[in-house]
Amino acid sequence: MTGAGTNSTHTPLTGGPAIVLVRPQLAVNIGMCARAMANFGLSDLRLVSPREGWPRTGAYRKGAYAAAAGAVHLLEGARLFDSVEAAVADLNRVYATTARERGQGKVILPPSTAMADSAGAIAAGEKHGVLFGPERTGLDNDDVALADAVITFPVDPAYASLNLAQAVLLVAYEHHRAARGEAAPFAIPERSPPAKREHMLAFFNFFEDLLDANGFFRPEGKRPVMTRNLRNMFHRMQMTEQDVRTFWGAIVRLVEGPRAEKDKSAKKSAPTRSVNSAD
Amino acid sequence: MTGAGTNSTHTPLTGGPAIVLVRPQLAVNIGMCARAMANFGLSDLRLVSPREGWPRTGAYRKGAYAAAAGAVHLLEGARLFDSVEAAVADLNRVYATTARERGQGKVILPPSTAMADSAGAIAAGEKHGVLFGPERTGLDNDDVALADAVITFPVDPAYASLNLAQAVLLVAYEHHRAARGEAAPFAIPERSPPAKREHMLAFFNFFEDLLDANGFFRPEGKRPVMTRNLRNMFHRMQMTEQDVRTFWGAIVRLVEGPRAEKDKSAKKSAPTRSVNSAD
Repeated sequence: MTGAGTNSTHTPLTGGPAIVLVRPQLAVNIGMCARAMANFGLSDLRLVSPREGWPRTGAYRKGAYAAAAGAVHLLEGARLFDSVEAAVADLNRVYATTARERGQGKVILPPSTAMADSAGAIAAGEKHGVLFGPERTGLDNDDVALADAVITFPVDPAYASLNLAQAVLLVAYEHHRAARGEAAPFAIPERSPPAKREHMLAFFNFFEDLLDANGFFRPEGKRPVMTRNLRNMFHRMQMTEQDVRTFWGAIVRLVEGPRAEKDKSAKKSAPTRSVNSAD
Repeated sequence: MTGAGTNSTHTPLTGGPAIVLVRPQLAVNIGMCARAMANFGLSDLRLVSPREGWPRTGAYRKGAYAAAAGAVHLLEGARLFDSVEAAVADLNRVYATTARERGQGKVILPPSTAMADSAGAIAAGEKHGVLFGPERTGLDNDDVALADAVITFPVDPAYASLNLAQAVLLVAYEHHRAARGEAAPFAIPERSPPAKREHMLAFFNFFEDLLDANGFFRPEGKRPVMTRNLRNMFHRMQMTEQDVRTFWGAIVRLVEGPRAEKDKSAKKSAPTRSVNSAD
């Protein structure tokens, strides 16, 4: 969305469940999973028997690191295991992601519910992990049997095939929402404050007097409803103090006509500074 | 997760907001966006001035179609526009996705809130769309100015760079959750029903009598608490009728020792059929 890489002004988030990639096939997918984890503040990446081994050098390694788009610390910190049992040995709860029913009678949860439960337990000191299977086949039944519960994504059954990194992204996203909320990753800057009612009413009176003087309110009997409708249109704009000044200045300009150099009439007519500001 | 492609036993979902890719750079990303849309039932893909043109033939087209992983109908149905204004002309509400504050004073929403609002309005007959900018730079300020509101993803500020298809995925996922819920994409098959209390109590009595006969409850005074703890362990298993039969049969087998061929003792001792089933 805004170019790749880390933002050195922030310290990466840590915590959340371990992401356990079981027999992943492609290095580029491992890199994209690392990037998805970093986007939503997960920090524990575990690899079980990657098909091509890990770490690798040359093109293989380049592909993974390029796909990680700056989340290099996750690849450098990834731990390699030769069995799922070893990869989950230190965890208190394990989720298995599956796209098909496995007939194992396990609880099946959407990622939102699973990560809400998990974030609470992790905050209380537990260690959790989520298993993701190989790109082509998904987890096998012995992998699923190691889990306490199953996470299944609420996809369209007609196109149930989620890319591996996208499945990791949804789990990381839901953990982040549950553990840390949905605030934007930047501070919303100070805006001009919402206009005070007295400022808007002063503008309405100025505007309606002008319209009246120009014979806008016809027939006379319609004046009340026409006035109400106009005021409601402006209220829907949720005008700031600056918006009122800007619009007021625009009306003044229209009524007074072209301004000669150094003409201060607009500033005289309007109540405050910078009436011609485009904000 | 489970191999690519469409599932011919289901009709693809349709509806939801239009996904408008503004000046996308890479065909493979257009394909991945189509796949993400199909995963969560969006059907209206619009392309504004793709850098390499659209549709294309040869390797370019191959890359997009391979990345779409079966969501070919979305690529075939994608509409090409030469301006964002033209692409959104028929829409009633437009969201712009941005990763940075743009100082335009627009409402900034997380995808969950935006899509909950949007799904309701779309159900009431409005047409909505979501703008996504070029991979490297994101939307420019003139694109954002065309939107009613901004969607910003609650990413870790240290790694705010979301892949284009992953941003589309999160919007499609949140629309699907809001419009259609979070049900798993398959029917949960009938399981053996949860065990009736009388069945579990019969098992508890059988099991505790055996333990008693073997002198397990020592010291005598601890019998009540030891019994309660055992029963609570079994209750935490949330046993089905079949679970009770299976476990009962296993205990019978342990007590009676190795079974000769044709020995029916297990079946005689246990209350119901298939006591040795592994379920």
